[in-house]
Amino acid sequence: MKTYDAHLDELCINAIRFLAVDAVEQAKSGHPGTPMGTAALAYTLWDRFMKYNPHDPQWPNRDRFILSAGHASMLLYALLYLTGYDLTLDDIKQFRQWGSRTPGHPEFGHTPGVEVTTGPLGQGFGNSVGMAVAARSMACHFNRPNYAVVEHFIYVLASDGDMEEGVSSEAASLAGTLQLGNLIVFYDDNEISIEGSTDAAFRENVGARFTAYGWQVIGPIDGMNTIEVDAAIGQAQIETARPSLIICRTTIGYGSPEQATGKVHGEPLGAEGATAAKHNLGWPLEPTFYVPDEVLQHMRQAVERGESAERAWQQQMEGYAKDYPELAIQFNAQLRGELPAGWDHGLAELFPAGSKAVATRSASGKVINALAKNIPALMGGAGDLAPSTKTLIDDGGDFSVEEPCGRNMHFGVREHAMGSIANGMARYGGVIPYTATFLIFSDYMRPPMRLAALMGIRVVHVFTHDSIALGEDGPTHQPIEQLLGLRSVPNYTLIRPADATETVEAWKAALLNTTGPTGLVLTRQNLPVIDRTTHAPANGLQRGGYVLWQSADGIPQIMLIATGSEVSLALAAGERLAGDGMNVRVVSLPCWALFDKQPTDYRDSVLPPQVRARISIEAATPMGWERYVGPDGIALGIDHFGSSAPGPVNYEKFGFTPEHVVEVAMSLMGR
Amino acid sequence: MKTYDAHLDELCINAIRFLAVDAVEQAKSGHPGTPMGTAALAYTLWDRFMKYNPHDPQWPNRDRFILSAGHASMLLYALLYLTGYDLTLDDIKQFRQWGSRTPGHPEFGHTPGVEVTTGPLGQGFGNSVGMAVAARSMACHFNRPNYAVVEHFIYVLASDGDMEEGVSSEAASLAGTLQLGNLIVFYDDNEISIEGSTDAAFRENVGARFTAYGWQVIGPIDGMNTIEVDAAIGQAQIETARPSLIICRTTIGYGSPEQATGKVHGEPLGAEGATAAKHNLGWPLEPTFYVPDEVLQHMRQAVERGESAERAWQQQMEGYAKDYPELAIQFNAQLRGELPAGWDHGLAELFPAGSKAVATRSASGKVINALAKNIPALMGGAGDLAPSTKTLIDDGGDFSVEEPCGRNMHFGVREHAMGSIANGMARYGGVIPYTATFLIFSDYMRPPMRLAALMGIRVVHVFTHDSIALGEDGPTHQPIEQLLGLRSVPNYTLIRPADATETVEAWKAALLNTTGPTGLVLTRQNLPVIDRTTHAPANGLQRGGYVLWQSADGIPQIMLIATGSEVSLALAAGERLAGDGMNVRVVSLPCWALFDKQPTDYRDSVLPPQVRARISIEAATPMGWERYVGPDGIALGIDHFGSSAPGPVNYEKFGFTPEHVVEVAMSLMGR
Repeated sequence: MKTYDAHLDELCINAIRFLAVDAVEQAKSGHPGTPMGTAALAYTLWDRFMKYNPHDPQWPNRDRFILSAGHASMLLYALLYLTGYDLTLDDIKQFRQWGSRTPGHPEFGHTPGVEVTTGPLGQGFGNSVGMAVAARSMACHFNRPNYAVVEHFIYVLASDGDMEEGVSSEAASLAGTLQLGNLIVFYDDNEISIEGSTDAAFRENVGARFTAYGWQVIGPIDGMNTIEVDAAIGQAQIETARPSLIICRTTIGYGSPEQATGKVHGEPLGAEGATAAKHNLGWPLEPTFYVPDEVLQHMRQAVERGESAERAWQQQMEGYAKDYPELAIQFNAQLRGELPAGWDHGLAELFPAGSKAVATRSASGKVINALAKNIPALMGGAGDLAPSTKTLIDDGGDFSVEEPCGRNMHFGVREHAMGSIANGMARYGGVIPYTATFLIFSDYMRPPMRLAALMGIRVVHVFTHDSIALGEDGPTHQPIEQLLGLRSVPNYTLIRPADATETVEAWKAALLNTTGPTGLVLTRQNLPVIDRTTHAPANGLQRGGYVLWQSADGIPQIMLIATGSEVSLALAAGERLAGDGMNVRVVSLPCWALFDKQPTDYRDSVLPPQVRARISIEAATPMGWERYVGPDGIALGIDHFGSSAPGPVNYEKFGFTPEHVVEVAMSLMGR
Repeated sequence: MKTYDAHLDELCINAIRFLAVDAVEQAKSGHPGTPMGTAALAYTLWDRFMKYNPHDPQWPNRDRFILSAGHASMLLYALLYLTGYDLTLDDIKQFRQWGSRTPGHPEFGHTPGVEVTTGPLGQGFGNSVGMAVAARSMACHFNRPNYAVVEHFIYVLASDGDMEEGVSSEAASLAGTLQLGNLIVFYDDNEISIEGSTDAAFRENVGARFTAYGWQVIGPIDGMNTIEVDAAIGQAQIETARPSLIICRTTIGYGSPEQATGKVHGEPLGAEGATAAKHNLGWPLEPTFYVPDEVLQHMRQAVERGESAERAWQQQMEGYAKDYPELAIQFNAQLRGELPAGWDHGLAELFPAGSKAVATRSASGKVINALAKNIPALMGGAGDLAPSTKTLIDDGGDFSVEEPCGRNMHFGVREHAMGSIANGMARYGGVIPYTATFLIFSDYMRPPMRLAALMGIRVVHVFTHDSIALGEDGPTHQPIEQLLGLRSVPNYTLIRPADATETVEAWKAALLNTTGPTGLVLTRQNLPVIDRTTHAPANGLQRGGYVLWQSADGIPQIMLIATGSEVSLALAAGERLAGDGMNVRVVSLPCWALFDKQPTDYRDSVLPPQVRARISIEAATPMGWERYVGPDGIALGIDHFGSSAPGPVNYEKFGFTPEHVVEVAMSLMGR
């Protein structure tokens, strides 16, 4: 039987609350309400249950804590400071200031102990499902009798807003299907949102909804009562066959005169309000940022607990390394995100010169299977489109409760959760996740794609059916603006390979990009395999763009610049123009991001500035191509929606024929 | 007691099935499975319950039918043809061909009787909630004792995929909260998705989930048994206080040798498969596209039923016009989407010269309230951000079951459903919907924004907190790539006004744009109100871009081109450059889409081609600005993520100061 000092607990809880209040007050902006309401439940979790080592935030077997309600960042910063992470009171005083380690919403990489970047609601929830997936996968692959090297929980704090967002519905449904018993979510049910009572928009029975998903639902409990929270966590930990939702009734802005209203959500309490709150909860008005010694002393015991737990695990790992030396090496290598020696073995032979035409989606399927043989960490799947996106790992098994080592994920028709889950998998580590859907449905998963870029994590997004050439499914399925939209996301690497051989290189680039996500844009339709014995090698893709072919030596008279399926079209048109006596260069430019990173002299060697006759060819919006075609060039594209018709018909009707390209080139050359 | 001819019913149902099979066969692509499984339930609905006039698809008081499972387009086309809409058997034979009226997925505007464009899953579901909202609103505003001029149902056919998508979870939760008893959804529970059994990813209890949302849940019933379907619809119609979900067990591809597998979802059955299916269901093999005379005769009775129903309604309207002449006029005007005379009354006086600085979000709030007084049809709201987006209509009331005439929608933290619901409201007509959230969260609602553009419907999207200047909330909340991303959507009009006076014009442009959606991009921070007595009038915005100010006559030496908050910065920098003796022009370019539509001579008058010294200034990705700054210009922007810090600090750190602009200008001019 555990016993606790109720007075000390309250001191700790109030210390958390008022660090949040004072930090928000000092920053003159922020969200005091949620930290004040959830301090008790978070304290109970961090003080009594959670397994973590503040001196080693990267300890692989730690419990994860995801603050899906990212606006409550000060709750997390207070916990990190009080439990002894590398975060000072001065850092907290710099809350929300330029260059500080305590930004407005938690940002992975800025603050030790922050597992993922949150703020856009629902994303942390989705990430947590990905972490629970990765943890189960790693446990299956690496745990052995007497060696539970991966055994811990994923904890999440989620708000009303998180529950309202569709992405968490999607993720919760999948978590229930997968019976992720290692996942425990606190739902901060404070009945208040920015526009007032949640009754205005949100009267559903959240508990019944999660029961329907297959979750264990605990509560509603009093989330500000440590005894109830303690019991609920215990109950959640015991249930291993279902994820658990603990519904916690709390009072937003507890203690403030405006408690339980929307006003305390996202604004400082104000000097008067802060004073009143301190008065109401028996907290000294001065100094601000006050932390009683006994609070720090008590909560910093987390360091000793954590170091002791990690030591025990390290000892276990020593035994493991003796009994399973190869597994131990592999475990550590996967956690470091390393690709095994020979990871690209077999790729070079996949598409020799003379290979018959193949869709880049199919080429990608072959690449995935070659890579999967070499890279055990590779796992992923599609949003119910595996047969179309060609993303199944043969004999990889289906990831499920029955087959926890399975490498094929079945995300269901849930693109948004798919992206968010993949982010969680990548941040967990050990696995290298990929997702797959049609390019048009990238629109459903923009928020997690952006967060992957912001966090700088390796996720591979496979996007097939990449243009009007997909044909009959029509304009609802035909991307136009998606390529530009994704190219403009900072740190997002979008690659549209020209053929099977560039697809091999694109996958290589994606796996080698450890500091951000990569999108692979692939065709539904077959494309000729470019003969690399007569054309430049495909590894030019690694520089983003390269001279694929030129009809004669010297400075070309005209350049055709294309990506993806339009590269073969450019070659066909180029040959005709060459037949007319022109010196024509065809440039394959599969990746703007990589190309723009090259030194000027390389870029100028591919696109010599003095050559002003330039035509870009891409079956998508021409917007943005001005940067490559320049003021005298022409961007051939599609500035309207597509049409339902067979792909070749669309392609022709929209001007993607050698004849049309030649015509445009002739007029550009004034012939 | 109704009695039916079971044999005739079966003939009709099979006629629908095999029109779908044959059309897909002929097109060599398409989705036969769902029409084959759902033909019986759709037939029962259309033959016995649904109120519609095939000869007047726009009859305002018709029931709406939304095929959220848009891939089952052939089901809808078969129904439209068989019940007598303006669609021929030849149209059906042209399924999925260039220029046909039977595209791969239903497209509003292409086919009479298609209410909304569907295909991207979950969207139709969201649209239907919007239609139910609009119907309730119109009924509240226009129905009077003895005159139920708006009284009908919204029917939806939704698939497993629709149920898995988060947008439908969001919309369903709101529909439950709003107690939309006029909404009846058939859930085609066929247990099959593209990757196989739905068990792989979707084991939740959908019925229990909808009960948790506050819906009436009927079934599971045998969705291929007309008697059970008949009873279920009756039960659904009786319930007026809750939306109804009818769970229909069906067999995908019923009759095909591959029935109840993923194979029949999205591919032709093949000649052999089609033959076997016809054999199995007792259908003649030849001719293809066979419709027995008695089927056509029976189903075309829909015309007489529909005309009679519409006549009765017209008669009612005649009485209504006598008893409520003003209401009748207003009703018709609103349905036509007309703006009332004097709709912009009061706008011109809102921000006179000398007005103090105001955020464009606040200016927009004033405009909304001025417009709301003049335009009864205007209604909308925010994704739980009304206080921040300033989108509340004062005294407009909160739309709810208690206040069905309320004009303020509370969408909850559900941006995706918000966009989708607004599309449904716009397509219903009578109301002019607007939505609101932070610009960054446009990422959550991309799919419905695109569909609004594709359908060409008037929806106004208010987006505030439009740049790194929002400050402390940090990079998760700071748009960088969103402006370009939205500008590149065909038929989407994105406007970023420079100040309060341009905000007035932006709202005008949005309401006058009846053929597509408009996004208004607004600041969190205050901006000076440009003095229009010394600068060009704000109505230049209607042309997308205009010369706001120039320091001297004649051709300028340098041009500063800016949007939104950066226009005042450009003016400040321009004045300094003028002080140094330069002839400087400042161009406000709030809307690329409108500017690009202007004749060349206008565009050249604003941006004279001979002036090569150009600087664009926008606190967002510089990508895409090449088209306006040209090869010798400079695009000042932000090509990385933002930062958590006070807005003015960010603004300065990222180079948005007059000093920096002047410096860049000087270097550009070689000084």
